[in-house]
Amino acid sequence: MRYQKKYLFILSVFLLLFSFKTMAQKDYKLWLQYDKKTDAELVSKYLSNVQGIVSLGNAETSKIASNELQLGLQNMLGKKFEIKAKIDLDKTVIIGSKALLSAEIQKEIGNFDQINEEGFIIKTIFLKGKNQIVITGKKEVGVLYGVYNFLRLIQTNKNIKNLNIVDSPKTNIRILNHWDNLDRTVERGYAGFSLWNWQKLPDFIDQRYIDYARANASIGINGTVLTNVNANALILTSQYLEKVEALANVFRPYGIKVYLTARFSAPIEIGGLKTADPKDADVANWWKNKAKEIYKRIPDFGGFLVKANSEGQPGPQNYGRDHVDGANMLADAVAPFGGVIMWRAFVYSEHDANDRAKQAYAEFVTYDGKFKDNVIVQVKNGAIDFQPREPFHPMFGAMPKTPLMMEFQITQEYLGFSTHLVFLPKLFQEVLASDTYQKGKGTTVAKVIDGSLTKTKLTGIAGVSNIGNDLNWTGHPFAQANWYGFGRLAWNPELDSEVIADEWLRCTFSNDENFIKPVAAMMIESREAVVNYMTPLGLHHIMDTGHHYGPGPWVSNLSRPEWNPVYYHKADKNGIGFDRSKTGTNATAQYAPEVAKIFSTLETCPEKDLLWFHHVSWDYKLKNGQTLWNGLALKYQEGVNQVKNMQDVWNKSAKYVDEDRFKEVQMLLEIQYKEAKWWRDACLLYFQQYSGKELPAGVEKPTQTLDYFQSLKFPFAPGN
Amino acid sequence: MRYQKKYLFILSVFLLLFSFKTMAQKDYKLWLQYDKKTDAELVSKYLSNVQGIVSLGNAETSKIASNELQLGLQNMLGKKFEIKAKIDLDKTVIIGSKALLSAEIQKEIGNFDQINEEGFIIKTIFLKGKNQIVITGKKEVGVLYGVYNFLRLIQTNKNIKNLNIVDSPKTNIRILNHWDNLDRTVERGYAGFSLWNWQKLPDFIDQRYIDYARANASIGINGTVLTNVNANALILTSQYLEKVEALANVFRPYGIKVYLTARFSAPIEIGGLKTADPKDADVANWWKNKAKEIYKRIPDFGGFLVKANSEGQPGPQNYGRDHVDGANMLADAVAPFGGVIMWRAFVYSEHDANDRAKQAYAEFVTYDGKFKDNVIVQVKNGAIDFQPREPFHPMFGAMPKTPLMMEFQITQEYLGFSTHLVFLPKLFQEVLASDTYQKGKGTTVAKVIDGSLTKTKLTGIAGVSNIGNDLNWTGHPFAQANWYGFGRLAWNPELDSEVIADEWLRCTFSNDENFIKPVAAMMIESREAVVNYMTPLGLHHIMDTGHHYGPGPWVSNLSRPEWNPVYYHKADKNGIGFDRSKTGTNATAQYAPEVAKIFSTLETCPEKDLLWFHHVSWDYKLKNGQTLWNGLALKYQEGVNQVKNMQDVWNKSAKYVDEDRFKEVQMLLEIQYKEAKWWRDACLLYFQQYSGKELPAGVEKPTQTLDYFQSLKFPFAPGN
Repeated sequence: MRYQKKYLFILSVFLLLFSFKTMAQKDYKLWLQYDKKTDAELVSKYLSNVQGIVSLGNAETSKIASNELQLGLQNMLGKKFEIKAKIDLDKTVIIGSKALLSAEIQKEIGNFDQINEEGFIIKTIFLKGKNQIVITGKKEVGVLYGVYNFLRLIQTNKNIKNLNIVDSPKTNIRILNHWDNLDRTVERGYAGFSLWNWQKLPDFIDQRYIDYARANASIGINGTVLTNVNANALILTSQYLEKVEALANVFRPYGIKVYLTARFSAPIEIGGLKTADPKDADVANWWKNKAKEIYKRIPDFGGFLVKANSEGQPGPQNYGRDHVDGANMLADAVAPFGGVIMWRAFVYSEHDANDRAKQAYAEFVTYDGKFKDNVIVQVKNGAIDFQPREPFHPMFGAMPKTPLMMEFQITQEYLGFSTHLVFLPKLFQEVLASDTYQKGKGTTVAKVIDGSLTKTKLTGIAGVSNIGNDLNWTGHPFAQANWYGFGRLAWNPELDSEVIADEWLRCTFSNDENFIKPVAAMMIESREAVVNYMTPLGLHHIMDTGHHYGPGPWVSNLSRPEWNPVYYHKADKNGIGFDRSKTGTNATAQYAPEVAKIFSTLETCPEKDLLWFHHVSWDYKLKNGQTLWNGLALKYQEGVNQVKNMQDVWNKSAKYVDEDRFKEVQMLLEIQYKEAKWWRDACLLYFQQYSGKELPAGVEKPTQTLDYFQSLKFPFAPGN
Repeated sequence: MRYQKKYLFILSVFLLLFSFKTMAQKDYKLWLQYDKKTDAELVSKYLSNVQGIVSLGNAETSKIASNELQLGLQNMLGKKFEIKAKIDLDKTVIIGSKALLSAEIQKEIGNFDQINEEGFIIKTIFLKGKNQIVITGKKEVGVLYGVYNFLRLIQTNKNIKNLNIVDSPKTNIRILNHWDNLDRTVERGYAGFSLWNWQKLPDFIDQRYIDYARANASIGINGTVLTNVNANALILTSQYLEKVEALANVFRPYGIKVYLTARFSAPIEIGGLKTADPKDADVANWWKNKAKEIYKRIPDFGGFLVKANSEGQPGPQNYGRDHVDGANMLADAVAPFGGVIMWRAFVYSEHDANDRAKQAYAEFVTYDGKFKDNVIVQVKNGAIDFQPREPFHPMFGAMPKTPLMMEFQITQEYLGFSTHLVFLPKLFQEVLASDTYQKGKGTTVAKVIDGSLTKTKLTGIAGVSNIGNDLNWTGHPFAQANWYGFGRLAWNPELDSEVIADEWLRCTFSNDENFIKPVAAMMIESREAVVNYMTPLGLHHIMDTGHHYGPGPWVSNLSRPEWNPVYYHKADKNGIGFDRSKTGTNATAQYAPEVAKIFSTLETCPEKDLLWFHHVSWDYKLKNGQTLWNGLALKYQEGVNQVKNMQDVWNKSAKYVDEDRFKEVQMLLEIQYKEAKWWRDACLLYFQQYSGKELPAGVEKPTQTLDYFQSLKFPFAPGN
């Protein structure tokens, strides 16, 4: 009886302490919650396969892997796991790279050629009469990835009996692009400010740097560009390189390489030269010396990301040279050290009013085959700029002799900042699964990206980061899923976004099926919702200008025509949409004939892309029999209704989620609902001036006048 | 046996889960850690006095108080405490305001006239044969303050038997000044960016707003100015007032009123008027209507803080009016609603090169008695600008018919940003304890501030906040102590800073005497250390200009003379220092004769203020027999040595502190040590040009040249 009392006392204390307010702690842990499993049967099932940990390596990466394994197993299974160096017990998880495995174990594992340098194998083997789970790879970082994969199995309540998992990342460069400025503002950042505290670096290592690396490693991200593509040359001075070095040292054991943006005019600004002409020997030399200086500090420095001759950034064209000249000059500087140049194709001329969507293709495709081996051209997913929906960029597949990497935007510049719940892997998947037909049916964008189409060695996916110093990293709890999903798709561009949503929800919130099913469905639906209430049927870039917050289809007063929303929607008495078919700018001709054919005619063009490619009469009959005007209005209403539905789903989830995060999402969905209505009302009132038609039945009456919506100003909208 | 095993299992799980990485959680909790007490005897002693909680009130503030009491007791004593509404058990803590207490309890409590509207009484009473602890006040907010005080007794291992504590705040307005801009940058902010996420307000209530209010309430802070004194009129538009209202709603139950900064030219900028002349009827009316609009939203709105005709801010002088005209016009606008105007006296003219230190006094003292009743003049602690050491501002005591409130700077603009450990309550105490002699000996600054000298009803202390969105709120773990200490001194301006250090350490880290003693001593020493390595012997304002980061005694090229460090130190071949005696600017005459006499002569002037008041020959003999040059050099060295000593103390504290915070402080002290040497070397090399003398024995040789130090540039230093 005495023991029972004590037991109850301890238990009650234990439960109490856990029910107290956790002060935003859960948000911070991302998808690495490692919640204790409450299903005793499940726990005993796991424990019947895992009783101990053996870590064979001593490298820093090995220690990270074994500590993570210990942390995850202990937290989830509620049992102490010691990390041992020797295999003596049954049912241990043995972790170590190939070189550390005994010949006997190696034999059990089989052929290591099944995986690449970063891949891993997780296999249950029978060794000296004992069942063991081995997590291995060619390198320690592969082991680390394997450990996260193994833990994810338990996080998501998967079976771990008789494992035989062989997996490798399908791209080489899986990288975040931070558009972070040296003053810690973040261009298009909606989660606070930059993580990089340049003032306190190099001597102060913020715990967040470590936690950032850990989160990235857990999803296979292996690179980070620390600075904004609208670059500042100061990052390349020794005052800053010392700080970059400190970050590189933190990230290295997590398998993450540091990259920087190179301002093309740096030789002038910090080098004291009179020119930055890439054909000038002094300039080329300056960059070579700069590279040497950087690699002396950071031997595994990744390389440079460059935005040149785009939106006012300097570049080779300032000197009558072209992108190839600029990229190859930089490529030569980093080549001796194994560095790469990621050269952005996001260019559009201020002197060509014809069609912005055509310009990157027109300019870059002629360069195919001319770049050095260590140059990869970074192309945005669509030809305009990270819209809620864009057809895939015609450059994909059109440069068979040039490595192209994808640039996705994880931060929601055009998709509701960090207040709208939009599950982006659904968008990413749509792009990656698009068929370019460049080498016949089935040559998807994913196959361009992973190099399987073009046999390029250099492959990669970049994501413009949505990470800031908010307590929860991403501003919106569900925006964490976009970071997570980006990493998973960078690892495997053919992964299904539904699988990603399921995984993320289980790791982040709960394994309860009653929670998972509706909430996963809500996530998947969320992408179409934002398209519907912002830019349905192929509309694009009608956001208010500058900050891109809220609707601004009426804006027409900016100096460059292609900065104005009216340029993109072209609404008039006759109809709405941008004619990119043969009767218009003929941008469709940039796609393979099979694709061009589909996009070019009204009849075959998917309705989701209709107004992207065609100027369509208000009375045009959509497939569902509605006129275009009515269909457009109903799409806006549908978007609003979808958000309402998301609210209903979430409100039923309270019991599966901690109170803090539940309330956060609830408040944010309320804002999203308000803003969805704002978008609907402002856009329909504006377009109604041209259509001259009434709103159809089923569309709610606007609550404010068009004048009101046009009067709204947001001088301090973030990220601008 | 079966129970024992289970008991051990549960216990081991419990311990395990607590030993896992807490991911920066402890930092976030500030001084409200409520760590579980491990001394069983102590716990049982507390439990012999406290067994339950009875909360008599139902107001939101009452709920906050009872939840806090429950949280604190449960966490610290490891026992479940239910909150009951009825007194039935022995040894309960009964909380409720006077009106809620039974006549019987009221009688036991005694005279409520002992406390003011925000005060509290904590008393152990004997009621119906039972011992009870009653926490009460005239209002619920007093009860809340009492609860925090009671919890602090347990946090700091104090006795709670036979309590009889009667306490009231000695000032009315205990307020933080946030110099936060609408774009979330913080002027002089070194802990990240503004907490106020204007973009997501009013609909998204960040948990931090609540935790901020809670932390402030726990130390008695009852007001917050949300916006920068360099103000933006937009905060007064309905678009922003809606957001301010949401914050006010969060803060209200914690006893915290919201205030805003009023940009004097707002009637022009957002009101469409042609003038902001305070004597113009339309202008006065505009402000009256604006006040009405604000109070409709926020009935307990505190009022306005105004920086006028200072450093480029607009003000009444733009229209040929004076500060009284400006302040009184605004005072009339808020008076009907009980609002106050805090009018800053931080003014110095660009047209008067004589002595900046004299100007605020010269301008304001003539206004004595002319301000409306609801105006309080906010005066910085010294006559220049928040230096490591300044003599108290001569305005204190010099305006007997005008309420004056203190403005301290908690953020370390001139004291090492958030990288230097400097315990500011020591500085604050030095100012508050300074004797103004304005009504004879003993009329300290504290007595001016708390109204006991002048019998003014309106009293207050403002602190320029050091809070930002860093995970740990203040950038440096020990900077939390400055926020804490500010609050405690605002409550009681005569509190000893050693008591504050002791309290804060116990609440924040550990009650272990082996930790407390050396670390408290280190904190107390830290203020003199920063004076020594930055500005010893009365030197001031020789920081690099603009950002104020690091030494810049050589700067002499700024447009206004008093913005240049050379203006302040006046080093030349003959000596160094600013002659403010009769032979100089005669600023000493602004003090009461008793004080002036002390400061005016070299012999009586305290050496800590020597170069503030006198231009002193390099060969002048200090009291310790050293020449001024040698003494100055040795003071710089002493500062460096003191930081080294702080490092030694901290390095011995590892076992009392969690690993994260231990390492953080360790890294920061290393930076502080580096920078202390930088200050010493740069200043001594620079001054040596004038003294022409060698460094004395005991002073380390500089590691770099003066040229090197002068070449350092920090274009992105924070807070600028």
